Parts: sequence; C-alpha cells; structure tokens
Amino acid sequence: MEITKVLHMNGGVGETSYTNNSSIQRKVTSMTGPIAEEAITALYSSISPSPSTLAIADLGCSTGANALFAVSELIKAVENMRHNNNEPHAYQIFLNDLPGNDFNTVFRTLPKFQKENGRCFFAGVPGSFYDRLFPNKFLHFIHSSYSLQFLSQVPEGIECNKGNISMASTSPPSVIDAYHRQFQNDFLAFLKYRAQELVPGGRMVITFVGRRGKDPWNPEWELLAAAFNEMVSEGLIEEEKVDVFNIPHYKPCPSDVEAEVLKEGSFSINRLEVSGLDWIAIDKEFGQRSNREDEEVGGYGTMRCMRAVAEPMLISHFGEGIMEDLFHRYRLLIIQQIAKEKTELINVTVSLTRRPA
Amino acid sequence: MEITKVLHMNGGVGETSYTNNSSIQRKVTSMTGPIAEEAITALYSSISPSPSTLAIADLGCSTGANALFAVSELIKAVENMRHNNNEPHAYQIFLNDLPGNDFNTVFRTLPKFQKENGRCFFAGVPGSFYDRLFPNKFLHFIHSSYSLQFLSQVPEGIECNKGNISMASTSPPSVIDAYHRQFQNDFLAFLKYRAQELVPGGRMVITFVGRRGKDPWNPEWELLAAAFNEMVSEGLIEEEKVDVFNIPHYKPCPSDVEAEVLKEGSFSINRLEVSGLDWIAIDKEFGQRSNREDEEVGGYGTMRCMRAVAEPMLISHFGEGIMEDLFHRYRLLIIQQIAKEKTELINVTVSLTRRPA
Repeated sequence: MEITKVLHMNGGVGETSYTNNSSIQRKVTSMTGPIAEEAITALYSSISPSPSTLAIADLGCSTGANALFAVSELIKAVENMRHNNNEPHAYQIFLNDLPGNDFNTVFRTLPKFQKENGRCFFAGVPGSFYDRLFPNKFLHFIHSSYSLQFLSQVPEGIECNKGNISMASTSPPSVIDAYHRQFQNDFLAFLKYRAQELVPGGRMVITFVGRRGKDPWNPEWELLAAAFNEMVSEGLIEEEKVDVFNIPHYKPCPSDVEAEVLKEGSFSINRLEVSGLDWIAIDKEFGQRSNREDEEVGGYGTMRCMRAVAEPMLISHFGEGIMEDLFHRYRLLIIQQIAKEKTELINVTVSLTRRPA
Repeated sequence: MEITKVLHMNGGVGETSYTNNSSIQRKVTSMTGPIAEEAITALYSSISPSPSTLAIADLGCSTGANALFAVSELIKAVENMRHNNNEPHAYQIFLNDLPGNDFNTVFRTLPKFQKENGRCFFAGVPGSFYDRLFPNKFLHFIHSSYSLQFLSQVPEGIECNKGNISMASTSPPSVIDAYHRQFQNDFLAFLKYRAQELVPGGRMVITFVGRRGKDPWNPEWELLAAAFNEMVSEGLIEEEKVDVFNIPHYKPCPSDVEAEVLKEGSFSINRLEVSGLDWIAIDKEFGQRSNREDEEVGGYGTMRCMRAVAEPMLISHFGEGIMEDLFHRYRLLIIQQIAKEKTELINVTVSLTRRPA
C-alpha cells in the first residue's frame, strides 16, 4: 500500500487549493507549541557543554507555509534562552516527508528563512518515518505535528467494513481491532527507530490528531462516508468502489500513545496532553463564506480542512470528477452535525525524553 | 546576480530535453572516478576505529540520472574494501545544489537506489556551495564534478567585452583578468567553507571543466558568440542584447587550482590531474544524427552537451524563440571547428586532504 505517499502530502494540496490545512496546522502549532518549546529549552540546558550545533528533525513537514513555522518557533525558544550567551550557535534542520512530497517548494522559501533566522543548515530527508531516516544517535530533537495519525497502510482484514471508509459506529468490532493493531505496530516501529536516532537525553514532541478516549470512531470520516453513500444511492458512484476504500488513519487517545511508549521502553514521558478545537471555532476562523447569497453558509472551515487532508487519496481512488459534488454534500452534513452536537478536533500531544541507553 | 540559480540546473534541462549532459557527466565520472575512489578508500582506512557512518556530500548534484552515479561508485569502492568486515556500516549522503534545482525528481529515485545500495541515509541540501552548507567538522568526504567552473556571478567591469559572451581571443585583457579574479575569489571562499565542514583528515575530490594551461579563452563559447553575431548581422537579435550578456563560467588550468589551494592553506594536494575528451569522440558517443537526409550530419554530440549547459541561462536572457536557430548555427560552426583543429573538453581533477587544524 503506497497510499501514505499521497497522504503525507496533504499540506501541499491544502496549500495550492484551499490554504486551510496549513492555517489549521499553524493554529495547532500555536496551541501545542509551548510543550515543544519547553522540551527544547530543557534539552538545551541539559547538555553540557552546550552543543555548537543542535540537530532538529521535523517529521512529516509537508510543503506548505507551515513546514517552517514550527521550526522557527523552536529556534526562537532556544535563542530567547541563550540571549546572554554570545557563543556562536547553529541549527541543523532536517525536514522529512515521503519522497513524493513537494520539497522543491519548501526549498525555494529557505533563503528568506535563513536570512531571518540566523545560522540554520537545512536538509530535506525523503522517506517514511515508519523506517529509519537518520544514523544512530544523530538528532537532538524530533518534532512531528499532525502526521502520525496516518498509518503506514490500510489495515488488512477489513473487507467487512462496507458502507464505511474508516472506523465508524456501524463498523464490525474486527475492523476497530484491525485499525488499533495497525496503529500499535506502526507507532511501536516509529518509537524504535527514533530511539536509535536520538542522542541519550534527546527529546521528541509529537502531536496527533487524536481523541479524548471515548468512542474510537471518527465523526469526520463518518460524515464523508455518508456523503459517499448519498452519491451511491443516486447512482453517481459504484457501491463497490466505496466498499473497497478505507482510509489509513487512526486517531489515538492518550492511553493508546502511553501504552506503546511503555511497551517500547526507550522513552520517559514528560507530558501527555489533550486539547480540543471546536468545529464551530474552526469554521469561524478558517471558513470563507460563499459569495452566492442563495447558498447555505457554514461548514466551510471544517470542510476545507478535511478536503485538504483527504482529497489526494480520494482522487487517486475515485478520480477528480466527483470531488466538488462530494464536498458540497459533506459541507451540508457538517452543518447538520454542528447543529446537533458539539464536535471537536482533538489534539493529543506527547513530550518524551530518550533515556540513557 | 542570481544567474547561477539557473546555471547549476543544467543537468535538469539536459535530462528533460536532450539527455546528453547527464551522459557526458557519467562518462567524466568514469574517467575521473578512480581518483575519487582512491581518495575515499584511503580516507576510510585512515580513520581508526572505522566510523559507523560515513558522511559524504556531492556538491552540484543536479537532477539527472548522474546525480546518484558518482555516489554509488564511491559506496562500491568502500564496500569492496570492507568485504571481509561484517560490522554494520552506513552512509549518510548529502546531495547539494541550488534551491532552484529539481530535488523532487532526484528524491523520487531514492527508494530504488536505497534498495540496491544497502543502508544509505539521504538528504537534499539546497544552497550555494559558495556559502556554508554544513556544520563544523561534519563531513568525511566531499565530491563535486562539473560544477565549480560556474562562478558565483558574472565578473564586474566587463562591459567592454562586446561581441563576446565569455573570455575570447578578442576580449580585452581586463576581461580576462576580471574572470580570473572572480574565479580566485569564488574558489578561495569555496575552499575556506569546505575546510570548516570537513573533519581533519577528511578528503575532497573536485573535477572542473578546465583547460590545459595555454590560452585562457573558451572555444565552445567563442563559437556560440559567433552564432549570436551571425544572427545579429541578420537582424534576428539586437546587438545590445548580446553585448550585455556574459557567461559566469571560468575553466581553470591546474596552476589556477593549485594557487588557491596553497593560498587557503587548509588542504594538502594528493593529486592534480588533467584529462581530455576529444570533441570528435564526444560527437561519436553522444551525437544522435538527424533523421533528415538533406541535413549535414556531425556536431550533434558537442552541440547537445553545450546546449544542455547553456540553454537555461540563454533562455532567461534571450527568450526561447531563438534557441533552435541559434543551436543549428552553433552545430555548423562546431563541424567547421572540428575539421580545422583538434578541440578537447578538458577535465581538471584535484584530490585534497583536510590538514589537521
């Protein structure tokens, strides 16, 4: 399954088509940033003598304006702490995403970034973060935001998940189990590789699109499945085409994350936090209303964020033709959902320290 | 002058349009490869204990099939030497070119390369090699082929070089001097930065498009200027447009290279060699003949190689419209030149060791 090749590129599509995915990632980085900044300053203080170069990796950097936002916040945090220290200091920044990511676009923004942020050595690292990316004990700090909820593949054995495209309230328990196992395997591999790549005492801060710990299913994908099913019932899409399609996406709750960290054993947990962003707030902040007065307003923000994430993989399976119709229906379903109950985008953030070997 | 942004991308244009520049680079890598292989195996033997990861940079990697050819030859050389050593070993490969280079295309070929070449960690490093690219004492080995003859900018003060586009036999001495000084400044800066980036004992092998040490001018650019001047006299290009255009390209002779290495002082010279490739041989090996029977044959190989190198910067100054006509005239001039005298493409290769600080 090479579907993650498309998946990790979500920021790119958001950037070129809708500009919202990148905006919401920036919002999330602002929300969870203090945890990452606390971690990198603690790391910097803990290394004696101070390293002349701090090696930082951003995993799943994507290609939009957000690719460098998190990194610039991390550098600012260290520089603020160092303000009385005149020793020259450098940052080596590794931007990782899948080989299909649009690195060219990121690279062309770097000269400006470098002018504004002092001595930064940049490198793009193409590859899956479910594999090794760096030599042993090479990195001081790893950051990853809104990437690790993507699995390395669609779980096997979920052919019975008909009428759904992800874990849904109507999915058989075996589907929920298969998704959960895939997350466990993937995240365990991720932790094992990162433990090899970090120096002892190195830090890692990850933010997942997650859940608070109640139902394991995904309202946003259920609504998208509902939009698909409408189109199936109207004969606009073949039923079988929807039946065989599932999204490799798992939103972990804090205990899912904790369990794999404890199982892997190389990291201690400094923080494990949950924050939420109401769909209505997303809509207010990121939704640009339609200009057509006869059109129902609302739902644009959430729809655009989800479209930026989902569209590349949807297009590769369903083609481009149905997208406008699909996401129009999806937006109307979002409006109904928001009216019915409070629905949130949940961030699960974990801050880890690599134990001494 | 941002002209080098276009210049370093020559392999890319060659790759998409003519495929010859990459082929000739591969030919040159085969010719000069033994020098680089000797250097990297000597380096590997000299480090005790053997490093678990060898950090290698290829500067000016471009984007064609050749981007990875030199690197794969270097890895083979080390692996051949290590054949009785079962210790796990990794290579960290940094591919550098200007931020405008098409890194995406290179990155998409990496998964196949990694499968064939064992544990390689790749990173793309966007930036000019006339500036710092890596932290202090970070690299073991630096390789650069067919890139350093490009200057960081067109030399200043050569407005008097009318009717020419480079150093020509009819250029005023002040033009020759200005080109030479620009090469000295650029190569000295290059050496200074690389000395900071290499570990003590680290090695660097550079191949320039150069000259044997006689006339400092460039027959290939003189012929291109002649093609331009034909078109000026026929009213197809404005004379002024050609007058203000000069190519930031200097072909050093061995003593040019030696002088800057001695002046900079951080490197000892292991080898400094010259090799030549006859234009007729280039033509035979890389020229695909025209299918039009009425057309004069010959000159295609050299024309295509030069077109791949020059076309991006020519287009940015003259536009795309005149290119077919220009390079047709250029090919006919090459045929005359080949008939008149032996003309060679000269490689100057230098193998250096970073002295202990």
